[in-house]
Amino acid sequence: MTTLGGARFLVLDGIDGCGKSTQARMLAEALTHSRGVPALHLREPGGTKVGERIRELLLSREHELDAGVELLLFAAARRQTLRELVRPALAAGRDVVCERFHASTFAYQAIASGLPEDHVLSVLLRWADDPRPDTLILLDIDPDEAARRRAGFEDRIEAKGLEFQRRVAEGYRRFARLQPDTIVIDGSARADEVARAVRVAVGLGG
Amino acid sequence: MTTLGGARFLVLDGIDGCGKSTQARMLAEALTHSRGVPALHLREPGGTKVGERIRELLLSREHELDAGVELLLFAAARRQTLRELVRPALAAGRDVVCERFHASTFAYQAIASGLPEDHVLSVLLRWADDPRPDTLILLDIDPDEAARRRAGFEDRIEAKGLEFQRRVAEGYRRFARLQPDTIVIDGSARADEVARAVRVAVGLGG
Repeated sequence: MTTLGGARFLVLDGIDGCGKSTQARMLAEALTHSRGVPALHLREPGGTKVGERIRELLLSREHELDAGVELLLFAAARRQTLRELVRPALAAGRDVVCERFHASTFAYQAIASGLPEDHVLSVLLRWADDPRPDTLILLDIDPDEAARRRAGFEDRIEAKGLEFQRRVAEGYRRFARLQPDTIVIDGSARADEVARAVRVAVGLGG
Repeated sequence: MTTLGGARFLVLDGIDGCGKSTQARMLAEALTHSRGVPALHLREPGGTKVGERIRELLLSREHELDAGVELLLFAAARRQTLRELVRPALAAGRDVVCERFHASTFAYQAIASGLPEDHVLSVLLRWADDPRPDTLILLDIDPDEAARRRAGFEDRIEAKGLEFQRRVAEGYRRFARLQPDTIVIDGSARADEVARAVRVAVGLGG
Protein backbone atom coordinates (compact mmCIF):
# COMPACT_ATOMS: atom_id res chain seq x y z
CA MET A 1 0.00 0.00 0.00
CA THR A 2 1.39 3.40 -0.94
CA THR A 3 0.80 5.87 1.88
CA LEU A 4 1.67 9.36 2.97
CA GLY A 5 5.30 9.56 4.05
CA GLY A 6 5.84 5.85 3.48
CA ALA A 7 3.92 4.67 6.53
CA ARG A 8 3.92 0.89 6.78
CA PHE A 9 1.63 -1.84 8.08
CA LEU A 10 3.68 -4.45 9.97
CA VAL A 11 2.38 -7.66 11.50
CA LEU A 12 3.93 -9.77 14.27
CA ASP A 13 2.44 -13.21 14.66
CA GLY A 14 3.15 -16.54 16.38
CA ILE A 15 1.88 -18.88 19.09
CA ASP A 16 0.93 -17.72 22.58
CA GLY A 17 4.09 -17.15 24.56
CA CYS A 18 6.29 -16.46 21.54
CA GLY A 19 6.94 -12.91 22.71
CA LYS A 20 4.94 -11.02 20.12
CA SER A 21 3.41 -8.51 22.59
CA THR A 22 6.85 -7.53 23.87
CA GLN A 23 8.28 -7.39 20.37
CA ALA A 24 5.34 -5.42 18.98
CA ARG A 25 5.72 -2.83 21.74
CA MET A 26 9.49 -2.55 21.15
CA LEU A 27 9.00 -2.32 17.38
CA ALA A 28 6.35 0.38 17.73
CA GLU A 29 8.73 2.36 19.97
CA ALA A 30 11.59 1.95 17.48
CA LEU A 31 9.38 3.07 14.59
CA THR A 32 8.09 6.05 16.56
CA HIS A 33 11.68 7.06 17.40
CA SER A 34 12.90 6.51 13.84
CA ARG A 35 10.21 8.45 12.01
CA GLY A 36 9.12 10.96 14.64
CA VAL A 37 5.47 9.98 14.17
CA PRO A 38 3.73 7.84 16.83
CA ALA A 39 3.25 4.31 15.52
CA LEU A 40 -0.11 2.65 16.19
CA HIS A 41 0.14 -0.62 18.13
CA LEU A 42 -2.85 -2.95 17.68
CA ARG A 43 -3.72 -6.33 19.08
CA GLU A 44 -6.27 -8.45 17.24
CA PRO A 45 -9.19 -8.99 17.52
CA GLY A 46 -9.49 -5.98 19.87
CA GLY A 47 -8.99 -2.30 19.22
CA THR A 48 -12.42 -1.44 17.83
CA LYS A 49 -15.68 -1.59 19.77
CA VAL A 50 -16.88 -4.32 17.44
CA GLY A 51 -13.61 -6.20 17.86
CA GLU A 52 -13.80 -6.00 21.66
CA ARG A 53 -17.31 -7.46 21.63
CA ILE A 54 -16.18 -10.22 19.28
CA ARG A 55 -13.16 -10.88 21.50
CA GLU A 56 -15.50 -11.35 24.48
CA LEU A 57 -17.58 -13.81 22.46
CA LEU A 58 -14.52 -15.76 21.33
CA LEU A 59 -12.91 -16.04 24.75
CA SER A 60 -16.06 -16.70 26.76
CA ARG A 61 -16.54 -20.14 28.22
CA GLU A 62 -20.33 -19.75 28.29
CA HIS A 63 -20.88 -21.29 24.84
CA GLU A 64 -19.31 -23.71 22.41
CA LEU A 65 -18.21 -22.20 19.11
CA ASP A 66 -16.98 -24.40 16.31
CA ALA A 67 -13.94 -23.37 14.28
CA GLY A 68 -16.12 -22.09 11.42
CA VAL A 69 -17.92 -19.59 13.66
CA GLU A 70 -14.56 -18.55 15.11
CA LEU A 71 -13.18 -18.00 11.60
CA LEU A 72 -16.13 -15.80 10.57
CA LEU A 73 -15.89 -13.75 13.77
CA PHE A 74 -12.12 -13.26 13.46
CA ALA A 75 -12.57 -12.22 9.83
CA ALA A 76 -15.30 -9.73 10.80
CA ALA A 77 -13.16 -8.20 13.56
CA ARG A 78 -10.16 -8.01 11.23
CA ARG A 79 -12.10 -6.30 8.46
CA GLN A 80 -13.39 -3.75 10.97
CA THR A 81 -9.88 -3.12 12.33
CA LEU A 82 -8.49 -2.63 8.83
CA ARG A 83 -11.20 -0.12 7.87
CA GLU A 84 -11.60 1.70 11.16
CA LEU A 85 -8.00 1.87 12.41
CA VAL A 86 -5.31 0.66 10.00
CA ARG A 87 -6.35 2.51 6.86
CA PRO A 88 -6.85 5.91 8.57
CA ALA A 89 -3.54 5.57 10.46
CA LEU A 90 -1.59 4.79 7.29
CA ALA A 91 -3.35 7.64 5.48
CA ALA A 92 -2.24 9.97 8.28
CA GLY A 93 1.38 8.81 7.88
CA ARG A 94 1.51 6.58 10.97
CA ASP A 95 3.15 3.17 10.94
CA VAL A 96 0.94 0.36 12.25
CA VAL A 97 2.19 -2.65 14.23
CA CYS A 98 -0.43 -5.37 14.64
CA GLU A 99 -0.24 -8.49 16.81
CA ARG A 100 -1.91 -11.45 15.13
CA PHE A 101 -3.32 -11.63 11.61
CA HIS A 102 -4.07 -14.28 8.99
CA ALA A 103 -1.34 -16.67 10.18
CA SER A 104 -3.07 -17.04 13.56
CA THR A 105 -6.46 -17.75 12.02
CA PHE A 106 -4.89 -20.21 9.59
CA ALA A 107 -2.96 -21.97 12.38
CA TYR A 108 -5.86 -22.23 14.83
CA GLN A 109 -8.94 -22.63 12.66
CA ALA A 110 -7.48 -24.51 9.69
CA ILE A 111 -4.48 -26.58 10.81
CA ALA A 112 -5.24 -27.13 14.50
CA SER A 113 -9.05 -27.35 14.21
CA GLY A 114 -9.40 -29.00 10.83
CA LEU A 115 -11.18 -26.51 8.56
CA PRO A 116 -10.03 -26.80 4.89
CA GLU A 117 -6.90 -24.67 4.37
CA ASP A 118 -7.97 -23.18 1.05
CA HIS A 119 -11.44 -22.23 2.30
CA VAL A 120 -9.97 -20.47 5.32
CA LEU A 121 -7.43 -18.57 3.23
CA SER A 122 -10.16 -17.67 0.75
CA VAL A 123 -12.30 -16.01 3.44
CA LEU A 124 -9.34 -14.11 4.88
CA LEU A 125 -7.88 -12.93 1.58
CA ARG A 126 -11.26 -11.96 0.15
CA TRP A 127 -12.82 -10.23 3.16
CA ALA A 128 -10.01 -9.07 5.45
CA ASP A 129 -7.00 -8.13 3.36
CA ASP A 130 -7.30 -4.44 2.51
CA PRO A 131 -4.98 -2.83 3.39
CA ARG A 132 -2.60 -5.76 3.19
CA PRO A 133 0.43 -5.91 5.53
CA ASP A 134 3.70 -4.68 4.04
CA THR A 135 5.67 -7.07 6.23
CA LEU A 136 4.62 -10.16 8.14
CA ILE A 137 7.00 -11.49 10.79
CA LEU A 138 6.46 -14.86 12.40
CA LEU A 139 8.17 -15.40 15.76
CA ASP A 140 8.96 -19.09 15.82
CA ILE A 141 9.35 -20.84 19.17
CA ASP A 142 8.99 -24.37 20.47
CA PRO A 143 5.45 -24.81 21.88
CA ASP A 144 6.76 -26.50 25.06
CA GLU A 145 9.00 -23.50 25.73
CA ALA A 146 6.07 -21.15 25.01
CA ALA A 147 3.89 -23.07 27.47
CA ARG A 148 6.52 -22.62 30.19
CA ARG A 149 6.61 -18.87 29.48
CA ARG A 150 2.83 -18.48 29.68
CA ALA A 151 2.39 -20.46 32.93
CA GLY A 152 -0.99 -19.71 34.47
CA PHE A 153 -3.40 -17.67 32.38
CA GLU A 154 -5.79 -19.65 30.19
CA ASP A 155 -8.88 -18.69 28.20
CA ARG A 156 -11.30 -20.88 26.26
CA ILE A 157 -8.96 -21.32 23.31
CA GLU A 158 -5.73 -21.69 25.26
CA ALA A 159 -7.32 -24.28 27.53
CA LYS A 160 -7.27 -26.81 24.71
CA GLY A 161 -3.90 -28.08 25.89
CA LEU A 162 -0.36 -28.65 24.77
CA GLU A 163 -1.14 -31.13 22.00
CA PHE A 164 -3.43 -28.53 20.43
CA GLN A 165 -0.69 -25.87 20.82
CA ARG A 166 1.73 -28.13 18.97
CA ARG A 167 -0.67 -28.37 16.05
CA VAL A 168 -1.08 -24.58 16.17
CA ALA A 169 2.72 -24.15 16.03
CA GLU A 170 2.86 -26.45 13.01
CA GLY A 171 0.08 -24.34 11.48
CA TYR A 172 2.15 -21.16 11.69
CA ARG A 173 5.06 -22.94 10.02
CA ARG A 174 2.81 -24.22 7.27
CA PHE A 175 1.44 -20.71 6.71
CA ALA A 176 5.01 -19.44 6.29
CA ARG A 177 5.67 -22.13 3.69
CA LEU A 178 2.49 -21.27 1.78
CA GLN A 179 3.11 -17.51 1.96
CA PRO A 180 6.79 -17.22 1.10
CA ASP A 181 7.02 -13.48 1.86
CA THR A 182 6.60 -14.34 5.55
CA ILE A 183 9.76 -13.53 7.52
CA VAL A 184 10.44 -16.18 10.16
CA ILE A 185 12.52 -15.09 13.17
CA ASP A 186 13.69 -17.35 16.00
CA GLY A 187 11.69 -16.19 19.01
CA SER A 188 13.58 -18.29 21.56
CA ALA A 189 16.55 -15.89 21.89
CA ARG A 190 16.79 -13.04 24.45
CA ALA A 191 14.17 -10.33 23.90
CA ASP A 192 16.74 -7.68 22.92
CA GLU A 193 18.29 -10.03 20.37
CA VAL A 194 14.89 -10.85 18.86
CA ALA A 195 14.09 -7.14 18.80
CA ARG A 196 17.26 -6.44 16.85
CA ALA A 197 16.39 -9.15 14.31
CA VAL A 198 12.89 -7.66 13.98
CA ARG A 199 14.29 -4.17 13.41
CA VAL A 200 16.67 -5.46 10.75
CA ALA A 201 13.78 -7.30 9.07
CA VAL A 202 11.81 -4.06 8.71
CA GLY A 203 14.85 -2.06 7.56
CA LEU A 204 15.46 -0.08 10.75
CA GLY A 205 19.04 -1.32 11.14
CA GLY A 206 20.29 -3.02 14.31
CA MET B 1 -31.82 -33.59 5.25
CA THR B 2 -33.21 -36.95 6.34
CA THR B 3 -34.41 -36.73 9.90
CA LEU B 4 -36.32 -38.65 12.53
CA GLY B 5 -40.01 -38.73 11.73
CA GLY B 6 -39.61 -36.56 8.65
CA ALA B 7 -39.04 -33.31 10.53
CA ARG B 8 -38.43 -30.43 8.15
CA PHE B 9 -36.50 -27.17 8.12
CA LEU B 10 -38.64 -24.39 6.62
CA VAL B 11 -37.58 -20.82 5.97
CA LEU B 12 -39.78 -17.73 5.52
CA ASP B 13 -38.01 -14.70 4.14
CA GLY B 14 -38.77 -11.30 2.64
CA ILE B 15 -38.42 -7.56 3.27
CA ASP B 16 -39.32 -5.89 6.55
CA GLY B 17 -43.08 -5.55 6.75
CA CYS B 18 -43.81 -8.47 4.39
CA GLY B 19 -45.55 -10.36 7.20
CA LYS B 20 -42.99 -13.11 7.78
CA SER B 21 -43.21 -12.99 11.60
CA THR B 22 -46.98 -13.46 11.52
CA GLN B 23 -46.73 -16.17 8.87
CA ALA B 24 -43.90 -17.97 10.65
CA ARG B 25 -45.94 -18.06 13.86
CA MET B 26 -49.02 -19.34 12.03
CA LEU B 27 -46.99 -21.95 10.13
CA ALA B 28 -45.32 -23.18 13.33
CA GLU B 29 -48.76 -23.54 14.92
CA ALA B 30 -50.10 -25.44 11.91
CA LEU B 31 -47.09 -27.77 11.90
CA THR B 32 -47.38 -28.39 15.63
CA HIS B 33 -51.09 -29.19 15.22
CA SER B 34 -50.49 -31.38 12.18
CA ARG B 35 -47.66 -33.51 13.57
CA GLY B 36 -48.34 -33.36 17.29
CA VAL B 37 -44.74 -32.31 17.98
CA PRO B 38 -44.00 -28.68 18.92
CA ALA B 39 -42.34 -26.92 15.98
CA LEU B 40 -39.37 -24.68 16.76
CA HIS B 41 -39.83 -21.07 15.63
CA LEU B 42 -36.58 -19.14 15.13
CA ARG B 43 -35.82 -15.62 14.09
CA GLU B 44 -32.37 -14.84 12.69
CA PRO B 45 -29.85 -13.71 13.80
CA GLY B 46 -31.15 -14.28 17.34
CA GLY B 47 -32.00 -17.44 19.19
CA THR B 48 -28.54 -18.38 20.44
CA LYS B 49 -26.50 -16.36 22.94
CA VAL B 50 -23.92 -15.74 20.25
CA GLY B 51 -26.63 -14.70 17.80
CA GLU B 52 -28.18 -12.27 20.29
CA ARG B 53 -24.81 -10.59 20.87
CA ILE B 54 -24.27 -10.38 17.11
CA ARG B 55 -27.76 -8.97 16.67
CA GLU B 56 -26.94 -6.21 19.18
CA LEU B 57 -23.77 -5.41 17.25
CA LEU B 58 -25.59 -5.31 13.92
CA LEU B 59 -28.47 -3.12 15.07
CA SER B 60 -26.48 -0.73 17.23
CA ARG B 61 -26.07 2.82 16.02
CA GLU B 62 -22.85 3.31 17.99
CA HIS B 63 -20.56 2.22 15.16
CA GLU B 64 -20.40 2.03 11.39
CA LEU B 65 -20.21 -1.46 9.93
CA ASP B 66 -19.63 -1.97 6.24
CA ALA B 67 -21.60 -4.63 4.37
CA GLY B 68 -18.66 -7.05 4.46
CA VAL B 69 -18.52 -7.05 8.27
CA GLU B 70 -22.31 -7.45 8.34
CA LEU B 71 -22.07 -10.44 6.00
CA LEU B 72 -19.44 -12.17 8.15
CA LEU B 73 -21.44 -11.55 11.33
CA PHE B 74 -24.70 -12.82 9.81
CA ALA B 75 -22.91 -15.91 8.52
CA ALA B 76 -21.39 -16.56 11.97
CA ALA B 77 -24.76 -16.22 13.70
CA ARG B 78 -26.42 -18.46 11.11
CA ARG B 79 -23.79 -21.18 11.42
CA GLN B 80 -24.23 -21.10 15.21
CA THR B 81 -28.04 -21.29 14.90
CA LEU B 82 -27.80 -24.24 12.51
CA ARG B 83 -25.47 -26.19 14.79
CA GLU B 84 -26.90 -25.23 18.17
CA LEU B 85 -30.64 -25.19 17.43
CA VAL B 86 -31.72 -26.42 14.01
CA ARG B 87 -29.75 -29.66 13.81
CA PRO B 88 -30.70 -30.87 17.33
CA ALA B 89 -34.37 -29.96 16.79
CA LEU B 90 -34.56 -31.89 13.51
CA ALA B 91 -32.73 -34.82 15.09
CA ALA B 92 -35.38 -34.83 17.83
CA GLY B 93 -38.17 -34.93 15.24
CA ARG B 94 -39.23 -31.29 15.53
CA ASP B 95 -40.02 -29.14 12.52
CA VAL B 96 -38.14 -25.85 12.40
CA VAL B 97 -39.56 -22.58 11.04
CA CYS B 98 -36.94 -19.87 10.62
CA GLU B 99 -37.48 -16.20 9.74
CA ARG B 100 -34.72 -14.90 7.49
CA PHE B 101 -31.91 -16.84 5.89
CA HIS B 102 -29.61 -16.53 2.88
CA ALA B 103 -32.07 -14.52 0.80
CA SER B 104 -31.99 -11.69 3.36
CA THR B 105 -28.19 -11.58 3.44
CA PHE B 106 -28.05 -11.70 -0.34
CA ALA B 107 -30.64 -8.94 -0.70
CA TYR B 108 -29.13 -6.57 1.87
CA GLN B 109 -25.41 -7.17 1.67
CA ALA B 110 -25.02 -8.06 -2.02
CA ILE B 111 -27.75 -6.35 -4.04
CA ALA B 112 -28.63 -3.37 -1.87
CA SER B 113 -25.11 -2.71 -0.49
CA GLY B 114 -23.00 -3.69 -3.48
CA LEU B 115 -20.92 -6.69 -2.40
CA PRO B 116 -20.25 -9.14 -5.28
CA GLU B 117 -23.16 -11.60 -5.56
CA ASP B 118 -21.04 -14.68 -6.09
CA HIS B 119 -18.71 -13.90 -3.17
CA VAL B 120 -21.67 -13.42 -0.83
CA LEU B 121 -23.32 -16.66 -1.94
CA SER B 122 -19.99 -18.47 -1.63
CA VAL B 123 -19.61 -17.48 2.05
CA LEU B 124 -23.19 -18.43 2.87
CA LEU B 125 -23.24 -21.75 1.02
CA ARG B 126 -19.82 -22.77 2.30
CA TRP B 127 -20.09 -21.76 5.95
CA ALA B 128 -23.78 -21.58 6.87
CA ASP B 129 -25.67 -24.21 4.90
CA ASP B 130 -25.72 -27.38 6.99
CA PRO B 131 -28.44 -28.39 7.57
CA ARG B 132 -29.90 -26.84 4.44
CA PRO B 133 -33.57 -25.72 4.41
CA ASP B 134 -36.02 -28.20 2.89
CA THR B 135 -38.28 -25.39 1.74
CA LEU B 136 -37.62 -21.67 1.29
CA ILE B 137 -40.63 -19.38 0.94
CA LEU B 138 -40.23 -15.77 -0.10
CA LEU B 139 -43.12 -13.44 0.79
CA ASP B 140 -43.15 -10.88 -1.97
CA ILE B 141 -44.66 -7.45 -1.30
CA ASP B 142 -44.25 -3.95 -2.71
CA PRO B 143 -41.67 -2.06 -0.59
CA ASP B 144 -43.89 1.04 -0.36
CA GLU B 145 -46.71 -1.09 1.03
CA ALA B 146 -44.26 -2.72 3.46
CA ALA B 147 -43.06 0.70 4.62
CA ARG B 148 -46.66 1.72 5.41
CA ARG B 149 -47.12 -1.48 7.42
CA ARG B 150 -43.97 -0.95 9.47
CA ALA B 151 -44.64 2.76 10.31
CA GLY B 152 -42.48 3.83 13.23
CA PHE B 153 -39.82 1.42 14.41
CA GLU B 154 -36.42 1.81 12.81
CA ASP B 155 -33.01 0.36 13.60
CA ARG B 156 -29.63 1.10 12.05
CA ILE B 157 -30.28 -1.00 8.97
CA GLU B 158 -33.91 -0.02 8.45
CA ALA B 159 -33.04 3.67 8.78
CA LYS B 160 -31.35 3.60 5.39
CA GLY B 161 -34.59 4.69 3.75
CA LEU B 162 -37.11 3.70 1.14
CA GLU B 163 -34.74 3.79 -1.83
CA PHE B 164 -32.55 1.26 -0.03
CA GLN B 165 -35.62 -0.89 0.78
CA ARG B 166 -36.52 -0.92 -2.92
CA ARG B 167 -33.07 -2.28 -3.75
CA VAL B 168 -33.49 -4.86 -0.99
CA ALA B 169 -36.82 -5.95 -2.46
CA GLU B 170 -35.18 -6.33 -5.87
CA GLY B 171 -32.47 -8.37 -4.16
CA TYR B 172 -34.98 -10.92 -2.83
CA ARG B 173 -36.48 -11.28 -6.30
CA ARG B 174 -33.04 -11.76 -7.81
CA PHE B 175 -32.25 -14.43 -5.20
CA ALA B 176 -35.43 -16.28 -6.17
CA ARG B 177 -34.37 -16.19 -9.84
CA LEU B 178 -30.88 -17.50 -8.99
CA GLN B 179 -32.21 -20.21 -6.64
CA PRO B 180 -35.11 -21.65 -8.59
CA ASP B 181 -36.34 -23.90 -5.76
CA THR B 182 -37.43 -20.73 -3.93
CA ILE B 183 -41.23 -20.57 -3.60
CA VAL B 184 -42.51 -17.02 -4.09
CA ILE B 185 -45.86 -16.18 -2.47
CA ASP B 186 -47.71 -12.88 -2.79
CA GLY B 187 -47.50 -11.33 0.70
CA SER B 188 -49.89 -8.47 0.00
CA ALA B 189 -53.07 -10.50 0.47
CA ARG B 190 -54.94 -10.91 3.80
CA ALA B 191 -52.89 -12.75 6.43
CA ASP B 192 -55.21 -15.79 6.48
CA GLU B 193 -55.02 -16.07 2.69
CA VAL B 194 -51.22 -15.86 2.74
CA ALA B 195 -51.18 -18.44 5.54
CA ARG B 196 -53.24 -20.82 3.43
CA ALA B 197 -50.86 -20.42 0.49
CA VAL B 198 -47.91 -21.08 2.82
CA ARG B 199 -49.54 -24.22 4.20
CA VAL B 200 -50.23 -25.51 0.67
CA ALA B 201 -46.61 -24.78 -0.28
CA VAL B 202 -45.34 -27.00 2.52
CA GLY B 203 -47.85 -29.74 1.83
CA LEU B 204 -50.16 -29.16 4.79
CA GLY B 205 -53.23 -28.64 2.59
CA GLY B 206 -55.40 -25.50 2.80
